[in-house]
Amino acid sequence: MNFQFEEAIEILERTPKTLSNLLIGLSNSWIVCNEGEATWNAFNVVGHLIEGEKNNWIPRIEMIILKGKTETFPPFDRFSQIHQNAEKTIEQLLSEFTKIRRKNLENLRNLINSHTNLEQTGVHPEFGIVKLREQISTWVAHDLNHISQITRVLAKRYQEDVGPWKAYLRILNQ
Amino acid sequence: MNFQFEEAIEILERTPKTLSNLLIGLSNSWIVCNEGEATWNAFNVVGHLIEGEKNNWIPRIEMIILKGKTETFPPFDRFSQIHQNAEKTIEQLLSEFTKIRRKNLENLRNLINSHTNLEQTGVHPEFGIVKLREQISTWVAHDLNHISQITRVLAKRYQEDVGPWKAYLRILNQ
Repeated sequence: MNFQFEEAIEILERTPKTLSNLLIGLSNSWIVCNEGEATWNAFNVVGHLIEGEKNNWIPRIEMIILKGKTETFPPFDRFSQIHQNAEKTIEQLLSEFTKIRRKNLENLRNLINSHTNLEQTGVHPEFGIVKLREQISTWVAHDLNHISQITRVLAKRYQEDVGPWKAYLRILNQ
Repeated sequence: MNFQFEEAIEILERTPKTLSNLLIGLSNSWIVCNEGEATWNAFNVVGHLIEGEKNNWIPRIEMIILKGKTETFPPFDRFSQIHQNAEKTIEQLLSEFTKIRRKNLENLRNLINSHTNLEQTGVHPEFGIVKLREQISTWVAHDLNHISQITRVLAKRYQEDVGPWKAYLRILNQ
């Protein structure tokens, strides 16, 4: 196992700024491009990250710590944000994500300290018993997963434009 | 085709800052982790991006514009940076990348304007005839490819730590 609490925070606290740097000020054609029907664009992904901040990570971590194995997490709707954000700009979403992530990392530090048992468990509606360490590691990997997704969605806009180089760019073959 | 010169620049000018935000100040364990033997860590990837700025993108774009089909590009050694940077820090590499990218985007704007024929061609040592548009599109997709690679390398550090969530995180299954 490689998980270490302070190192996990290092990634979590960087994601809003990384995405803001990548996306703020881009032409709308980059923000709205996707990988085809029923796939997400960068705007949808940032909306999904906000939804996770509201309803997934901290509520579940709290449940592991406060309820342990006595209560199952409520399910998380991964698609709930799709229509909610229709009137917003990407800049508004990124600002919202930045604020809620900052607040959630404060919450996380209030919930967990160096004495916390990271192997303590909760009950996931699908997986059954899960560990606190697994839940926080997943938060980190989920951030990286969606940064990667956004770069892939953007790159695929040039899938045909790159001509013969396509075969050498892994991101265009995923 | 989706390529548009100013939109391509938008991505190219953001990459150094995006990577700096993601990587500066991270614990060394994040910077040196890789995907296994003979794979790159974040440090190696940034070294490779610098190498491309020095010996790949602008020299080839210049050759297309100045030599056209009369001369073949020299081959680009994708592994030349592995040993060159041994004494440097990731912060030094990111600063070097930031400076050389800024200079190269100035060069690019000196080479290309709204009258430039983006369909003009040069000769690639392996692919044969390639277009100016393809070369610049590839520069963009290559940036995104390597941002994606770095997020994947980092995420895989937690491949086992995430427990049952592994199956749901695409980045851990690539």
